Amino acid sequence: MSEPTADLLETFENPNVGRDYIIETVCPEFTSVCPKTGQPDFGTITITYIADELCYELKSLKLYLQQYRNHGAFYESVTNKILDDLVEVTQPRMMEIRADFTPRGGIQTSVIVNYPDEFLEED
Amino acid sequence: MSEPTADLLETFENPNVGRDYIIETVCPEFTSVCPKTGQPDFGTITITYIADELCYELKSLKLYLQQYRNHGAFYESVTNKILDDLVEVTQPRMMEIRADFTPRGGIQTSVIVNYPDEFLEED
Amino acid sequence: MSEPTADLLETFENPNVGRDYIIETVCPEFTSVCPKTGQPDFGTITITYIADELCYELKSLKLYLQQYRNHGAFYESVTNKILDDLVEVTQPRMMEIRADFTPRGGIQTSVIVNYPDEFLEED
Amino acid sequence: MSEPTADLLETFENPNVGRDYIIETVCPEFTSVCPKTGQPDFGTITITYIADELCYELKSLKLYLQQYRNHGAFYESVTNKILDDLVEVTQPRMMEIRADFTPRGGIQTSVIVNYPDEFLEED
Amino acid sequence: MSEPTADLLETFENPNVGRDYIIETVCPEFTSVCPKTGQPDFGTITITYIADELCYELKSLKLYLQQYRNHGAFYESVTNKILDDLVEVTQPRMMEIRADFTPRGGIQTSVIVNYPDEFLEED
Amino acid sequence: MSEPTADLLETFENPNVGRDYIIETVCPEFTSVCPKTGQPDFGTITITYIADELCYELKSLKLYLQQYRNHGAFYESVTNKILDDLVEVTQPRMMEIRADFTPRGGIQTSVIVNYPDEFLEED
Amino acid sequence: MSEPTADLLETFENPNVGRDYIIETVCPEFTSVCPKTGQPDFGTITITYIADELCYELKSLKLYLQQYRNHGAFYESVTNKILDDLVEVTQPRMMEIRADFTPRGGIQTSVIVNYPDEFLEED
Amino acid sequence: MSEPTADLLETFENPNVGRDYIIETVCPEFTSVCPKTGQPDFGTITITYIADELCYELKSLKLYLQQYRNHGAFYESVTNKILDDLVEVTQPRMMEIRADFTPRGGIQTSVIVNYPDEFLEED
Amino acid sequence: MSEPTADLLETFENPNVGRDYIIETVCPEFTSVCPKTGQPDFGTITITYIADELCYELKSLKLYLQQYRNHGAFYESVTNKILDDLVEVTQPRMMEIRADFTPRGGIQTSVIVNYPDEFLEED
Amino acid sequence: MSEPTADLLETFENPNVGRDYIIETVCPEFTSVCPKTGQPDFGTITITYIADELCYELKSLKLYLQQYRNHGAFYESVTNKILDDLVEVTQPRMMEIRADFTPRGGIQTSVIVNYPDEFLEED
Repeated sequence: MSEPTADLLETFENPNVGRDYIIETVCPEFTSVCPKTGQPDFGTITITYIADELCYELKSLKLYLQQYRNHGAFYESVTNKILDDLVEVTQPRMMEIRADFTPRGGIQTSVIVNYPDEFLEED
Repeated sequence: MSEPTADLLETFENPNVGRDYIIETVCPEFTSVCPKTGQPDFGTITITYIADELCYELKSLKLYLQQYRNHGAFYESVTNKILDDLVEVTQPRMMEIRADFTPRGGIQTSVIVNYPDEFLEED
Repeated sequence: MSEPTADLLETFENPNVGRDYIIETVCPEFTSVCPKTGQPDFGTITITYIADELCYELKSLKLYLQQYRNHGAFYESVTNKILDDLVEVTQPRMMEIRADFTPRGGIQTSVIVNYPDEFLEED
Repeated sequence: MSEPTADLLETFENPNVGRDYIIETVCPEFTSVCPKTGQPDFGTITITYIADELCYELKSLKLYLQQYRNHGAFYESVTNKILDDLVEVTQPRMMEIRADFTPRGGIQTSVIVNYPDEFLEED
Repeated sequence: MSEPTADLLETFENPNVGRDYIIETVCPEFTSVCPKTGQPDFGTITITYIADELCYELKSLKLYLQQYRNHGAFYESVTNKILDDLVEVTQPRMMEIRADFTPRGGIQTSVIVNYPDEFLEED
Repeated sequence: MSEPTADLLETFENPNVGRDYIIETVCPEFTSVCPKTGQPDFGTITITYIADELCYELKSLKLYLQQYRNHGAFYESVTNKILDDLVEVTQPRMMEIRADFTPRGGIQTSVIVNYPDEFLEED
Repeated sequence: MSEPTADLLETFENPNVGRDYIIETVCPEFTSVCPKTGQPDFGTITITYIADELCYELKSLKLYLQQYRNHGAFYESVTNKILDDLVEVTQPRMMEIRADFTPRGGIQTSVIVNYPDEFLEED
Repeated sequence: MSEPTADLLETFENPNVGRDYIIETVCPEFTSVCPKTGQPDFGTITITYIADELCYELKSLKLYLQQYRNHGAFYESVTNKILDDLVEVTQPRMMEIRADFTPRGGIQTSVIVNYPDEFLEED
Repeated sequence: MSEPTADLLETFENPNVGRDYIIETVCPEFTSVCPKTGQPDFGTITITYIADELCYELKSLKLYLQQYRNHGAFYESVTNKILDDLVEVTQPRMMEIRADFTPRGGIQTSVIVNYPDEFLEED
Repeated sequence: MSEPTADLLETFENPNVGRDYIIETVCPEFTSVCPKTGQPDFGTITITYIADELCYELKSLKLYLQQYRNHGAFYESVTNKILDDLVEVTQPRMMEIRADFTPRGGIQTSVIVNYPDEFLEED
């Protein structure tokens, strides 16, 4: 199966450009494939952002995320790629992706990525 | 059906002008119509504000929100319009509208709008 | 029935004057009467304060709050009056009253009042 | 029954002096006696601290707290005394005691005490 | 049984060096042995970190933590050692270990350790 | 204040006489007065019944229950009287009243009464 | 607005005629209008049935229930009518409708209707 | 300390002799002493009964249960003795005592005793 | 993609033939495809059975269920087929499959199938 | 490591022989080893029984269960063996063991065993 692509993402014009309001989208039905074991992984993707001129359209977001269904990728890569794709397409004022994966081997992992970086001062 | 109008909103004089106290109102029975599919949407509207000279009257707030029952509008527009109408009528010191819509297509969306803007520094 | 009065409130000397510790009291059995409809309202009163020289005595607080049982008053007024009475009697270093009223007409309201004001800068 | 005494508290050397890490201990089986009514009170004591050179030993903490079982004291005094005793014995870098007592007369009370004071600026 | 060793920990290259994103791993099946009583202890280890150039590999983390299964050590030591080992191997930009142990004798204890120290100013 | 009376209860004709369906009504805002201490009691009344020819009207039920607001009565009597009054007025095929009172002195009490008796065989 | 009609309900052939298996459908977004006050009511409809030869199609069930959106009817009538319509169209071996309406005036009501009657022996 | 005695239990006349209704009392503040270790035990006592001619008075029940505070007894004995004492004093039609003790050594124990026996057929 | 097949299911000999004990397996990561819309469905499969001579092996069960990942089928058919396949391979004394699918269009559906039929008397 | 043995189990005389009361013990800290992968398994063991002449002693039960810590065995065998050992030693009137294991590979399994068999009629 081909690589997931940002081409599926559609946008519409932010109806309130100039006001910094938050949009939060929770997608509890995310699934991808572990590249090491070939077994399916499951998780919840939570997107929080302040749009600038463009918002992503929800149905296209759903189709975009479904591309990962048979795609093999590690947790850290998947989460970073989703952020990169959504930032590229919507050019938001800020965006955070939180991915909470279901436990494997008794261990649960979450990855949280921000645009722009805000956790630590630059070195 | 005609456009929802702020005319239904009634106010009363803030009984404690000069003290900055918070009023929080939760309306879990909000429903509107998706303009694309014609299907009903459901959600919870949470209003948090510090009044200046006027408070909104609760029964009129209820009637105001019921205007959306057969009104077609997108999540982002509905939330921004509710804020604009309530700010226009009550002229509060601060106000936040949080709208949590029930899932559609396995995806849950919330919109959070503030008056005045406080999330990011102005560009 | 006569107006609720702060006279019922008794105090005792703060056993640790000079240390700023927090006392939090939750009263889930508050009830008053809606002055418009005559119907009873129910709610939970939460008091958080740092005493200066005096603490309120809990049994007298209970009797004080029971005065509202057959008293008609709006949410905003009740909450502000409870703060005013408790501040007058105990002269605390800080105090917050949070009143969470049970839903009416599908709408839930809370009122949060502070002494001294801390939410916004003075104009 | 004699007064609770800090003599029962034993300490051991902090295995990581120089690193400021947090130790949090929750004791949900605390019981003392109301000095006014003679009735037993129940509550949960939560201790959070950053040790300097000494940590309290958990079994001795349990025996220390059991001294209050038949001891008459008000909520505010009990909580302050526990802080004073633990600070005296362990000389921590910081410590907080939170005591959540079970409801009496429909009213629930908590007391939160810190060492050193951090809630308000000194007058 | 021999001492737990960081040698079991494997790493992989951070796929997004230069972006400060958070990885959070929860391990609810941690068990070690109390050195005083010889009885097993149980707990949940939560690791939160921002990688620099290296991430720990999850399966090797699991095997690393299983070394404590028959190892005798106190709560404070275990938590500090896990932080030291993970910091040594991954050289992260920041890392926190939170260990929540199940109750013993009616008392529940948690230990929270950070790299680098951030709780208090140096004396 | 006068004794609560069944006269306030209004009924309407069961729209489906002949089908044995269940109606369940939960009233979480019940309050009466303890005849011994004069202190208010609070509780939740749950009514479950199968109507014969008559259903009680909900607004009249609310007014009926509000009569207990300043009425002194013990838990067991209140619950039995509510059953007797509702049975008298609606003549149901079966009815159960469950009253869950909030704790007093650390003790929570519920009373469950049925019409007709069904718990035990007659002696 | 015209009366809700069973005509919107579509069926498909039970894929396992002869095996008595249960299908349970929960519709938390039901809304109708109170015929007395004109105010909207909200509730959750839960349908449990064992099909004979026909199952209802889910999308048509949704459209069927949306007919009540601007329809005025009492709780008891609505619930009984939904059962009658679904029984007429699917001719099931058994069916139960449970309707849980959101509180009005502090009172919550549920109606539970069965086909065929099973609660009580016939007189 | 002397043995707990049923003498403290007071009764009042069942206000509805002849109707088999249920009274359920939950006492979450029960504490006794382990006869082996001398350490305090904690638990919740739940009493469910159908009175014949006598009901126990709640305040006397509280005082009766407080007798166990410094009394050493095993879980099974305590629970059986409470049933024996309450049956002796109230002569109920049926009674169940459920005692849920808090965990010791990672193990939680409950004891459930009935009058008259109803779990198994007699041999 | 080919049809899911029972061939993947492996069994092992029941270690306690002759004792009727229950095995319950919960698989919260089930996903298939809606044959009408082509969109993925998600759900939880719960299997409860009493083995006769054979138990299914858990890893093979997982692989068996993963066959539905890209398979198009309606809820009712999927659930019945899983029962048929598991019954064919393990020949159990009894088995129940409960499938709880996540909401679509605001409607949640569950299907519960038993072997042998036990819900209703045969006609 | 040697096989777990019932020799560690100690009993004491049932203090109420002749009354059929229930004792329920929950052990949430059970751990054993998967014989196939060598990885640790975790679970909760719940024992419910009606004693005849002997009760098991709780501390010996704990030591008995700790024998499984480094013992390799499948879920079904472990649960059946625990029942066999406890029945042999206490000769109860009835006993049930419920073992709820934590998920592996996204699949959760429970095993429920009874003495004597009560689930199905004998063939």
